[in-house]
This record gives sequence, C-alpha cells and structure tokens, in this order.
Amino acid sequence: MKAPRKIEVCLSPKLISLYPLEDKLVVVIDVLRATTAICMGFEHGVKAIRPVMTVEESLALKASGYLAAAERDGKVVDGFDFGNSPFAYMDGKVRGKKIALTTTNGTKAIQLSKAAKQVYIGAFVNLQAVVETLAAREEDILLVCAGWKDNFNLEDTLFAGAVVHQLAAKQQLRCDAALAATILYEKAKKDLFAFIRNSSHFQRLAHMGIEEDIRLSMTPNLCHKVPYLRGEELTAE
Amino acid sequence: MKAPRKIEVCLSPKLISLYPLEDKLVVVIDVLRATTAICMGFEHGVKAIRPVMTVEESLALKASGYLAAAERDGKVVDGFDFGNSPFAYMDGKVRGKKIALTTTNGTKAIQLSKAAKQVYIGAFVNLQAVVETLAAREEDILLVCAGWKDNFNLEDTLFAGAVVHQLAAKQQLRCDAALAATILYEKAKKDLFAFIRNSSHFQRLAHMGIEEDIRLSMTPNLCHKVPYLRGEELTAE
Repeated sequence: MKAPRKIEVCLSPKLISLYPLEDKLVVVIDVLRATTAICMGFEHGVKAIRPVMTVEESLALKASGYLAAAERDGKVVDGFDFGNSPFAYMDGKVRGKKIALTTTNGTKAIQLSKAAKQVYIGAFVNLQAVVETLAAREEDILLVCAGWKDNFNLEDTLFAGAVVHQLAAKQQLRCDAALAATILYEKAKKDLFAFIRNSSHFQRLAHMGIEEDIRLSMTPNLCHKVPYLRGEELTAE
Repeated sequence: MKAPRKIEVCLSPKLISLYPLEDKLVVVIDVLRATTAICMGFEHGVKAIRPVMTVEESLALKASGYLAAAERDGKVVDGFDFGNSPFAYMDGKVRGKKIALTTTNGTKAIQLSKAAKQVYIGAFVNLQAVVETLAAREEDILLVCAGWKDNFNLEDTLFAGAVVHQLAAKQQLRCDAALAATILYEKAKKDLFAFIRNSSHFQRLAHMGIEEDIRLSMTPNLCHKVPYLRGEELTAE
C-alpha cells in the first residue's frame, strides 16, 4: 500500500535546510505582503515577476524593460517604482509588464525553495486555488512560511494552517508544525483580520499606515490563479 | 516610564541566534524528556547534573565519579547507566550523585543558551515553580524550546505557552511565537496528555513503549525546584 502523502509546514526560512525539497511541491507564503502582491499582480494582468535577492539586481533589470520593485523593512526602497503593497500590483500600469521584485522575506524564501519539484506562490487571496492545485497532484507538500527576518510569524503560519486544514485530517499529520498551524487557523478563521491584530507584524506595519493592505491580505479568494516558478521567473500561465 | 519586560519564545535551537541573550533570563524546555528528567532528579536528591554535548564527554566524566547518562534518538546509548527517562532520575541510586548527561535535543539547547544572564530548566513537572521564579525577577525572558533535531515540536511549545499564559496578557506580547504558544496552550490545557497524543514526538516515542514517561512528563507541578546553570553544572541549591 502506498503511504499517504506527507504535508509539512516549515515555520521559518532558517529551517528549510531540515527538509529535503526534491520531489516536493513547495508553497511559499509571505502573506504580509509579497505573495499577496504577487497573486494580485497576476490577477491584474502582470506578465511575469522575477524574484531577486538584492536591491541592486532589481534595479539592474530595469534596463532590460522590467518594472523595478523593492521593499525593505516594510517600506518601498528609495528610487524604486514600488514595493510590495498589493494595491500597486492592481494598477493598470502593471498590465502586460514584467516586474523584478526583491523583498525582506518573501523573495528570499522563494530562492531557498528552488530545489523543489515545483514552487507555488500562496496567500489568503488565492487560498482556494492553492488547495485545489495541491489536491489535484500527488506529491508530498511543504508549506514554507517566509516569516519575518528568519523568524516565525503568525500570518504565514495561519495560511499554512488553512491549507493543511482543507487537505488533511489532524490524525494523519506527522508534522508538529502542520498540526500547530491548523489548530491556530481553526481558532482564527472566523475573523482572520481581528485575530491578526495581535500579531507583531500587524503592529509593525500598522504604524506605517497600511491597515488597508493588511485587510486585503487577510481576505480569502480574491484571486483564481496560483503563480509558480518557471526557471528564474514567476508566471501564472 | 520603563518599558514592560519582554517575554519571547524561541521555537527551535536553530533560531536562538536571532535573539540577543545577554541580560535575559532563559528557560530551556525539553519536555520529552530531558528537562523533565532533570527536574525529577533534583526533586529526588541528585546533587548536580552536567549537560554535555557528546556521548564521549559523558563517558569520560565517569572516571571523575559521575553517573553517565546518554540518550540518542529516544534510546539509552549502549554502555550507559541510563538515558533521559524521568523514572531513572527518581531512583534511590541517584540520590547525592552527580550525573553527566547528553541528549539529542535538551543538552544542546542548554549549551546554546549559555550566554544568557541566567539559564533555568523548565518542564510541566515544575511549571508553577518556573512561573514564580520568573515573576519574582524583572529581566526580559526568552523561553527556548529544544524541539526535535533542530525543528519545532508541540510539547515544548505548549509548555512555553503555559508560562506565557501566566505571565502576560496577549495584548502585551510583541512576539508572534509567544502569542501562538499561548493560544495552543489554552486549547490544550484541559487535557494535555490527550492533546499531545496527536504530536509527532508522541508517535515516535509511543513505539518505544514509554507512554508512562509521556504521561508523567505532561503532569504539572510534581516538583518544586527550578534547576539552573551554575558554571558548567546544573544545580537546584
């Protein structure tokens, strides 16, 4: 008899090295705000997004016709077109365009996940699409939380929990992080935004006046595509 | 006005480097089973416990009059007096003795925490004593979960959550891991043993026939001492 597929949750990019990635489907999660912005971008006609590690790389790609986006510590880096606010990715200006993007946490987690069989992009805004995409395949799954500066965060863990909740019964889980994530999600699901108000990242970002970004990021199923990595670029084709 | 003290939770030894330890009170947590065994040992008259990183170090200390204890992957290492079963530390044979101990996770977490102002040992068996000890001091607190082989585990996180639950209101927390831990604890507290039955470590250990160890380890307040590191050795004096 074939063993049931494994569903695991990696709570921080610093823990990725504990998981073999080959043959796995990885979902990279950076709810506030990189993966939310990426999903919204593809929903609004962005052609491709190239995740890069450094601000310099993003800027250099401008010469090749990319829009350059860069976020550090929650803010748009000086001199860039935009950062990782999802609203910037819903603007008519991005339609048909390629974007080079670097962020504090999300783009790093994507780079660290590259050895996987497939790297998907997940956020509450495309939750149902992620669940359906994973359900249609058979490979083991690793949900990678981008976290905040290499540490655990609540919003990414909640999204991981939402996916686990829909794909597996608790008794089947052999991963304590998946179990914890799904328990936290069940506690939060009635009102995700209210739940996240207590989180450290909410408090960090709320000072920057981006409560609307957070409200949007915690809203499930605004998008119907699951972006994925093809070579060096994200696509949703 | 003085800022309120920080209470943070480090979910895995691999994340310790993200926290400055100087000036902090650290509680090292390895519920299944190293820190439970250490607490039970001091409650039963053990004189000192020397946590060491390797099996060889533990064995070498035998020549200096220590009892040698070593656990790897949940089992007593061949040739050793005992491992990390708490019952071995409740035996008359350990009274007045010094023990050299190496374990898969717990003793490593102790070593990695050494830069702290003070390193305490916590487990459900001394929960109330830990809470009272911390409440009587003013320094910032870091609760370090030993986890399993550098990754997150549920039982250590639950204990961290129990401590946070008693020391701080959720609104005061500026650490998502502390927030998550306390939410998980509140969900689990009615029946800790039943809750932990779903965890990966329970399933790993249950195969070894040590369900009684687990039951003991999930029982609050069997001990009244909080062991702490003094130089190279743990003491409860």
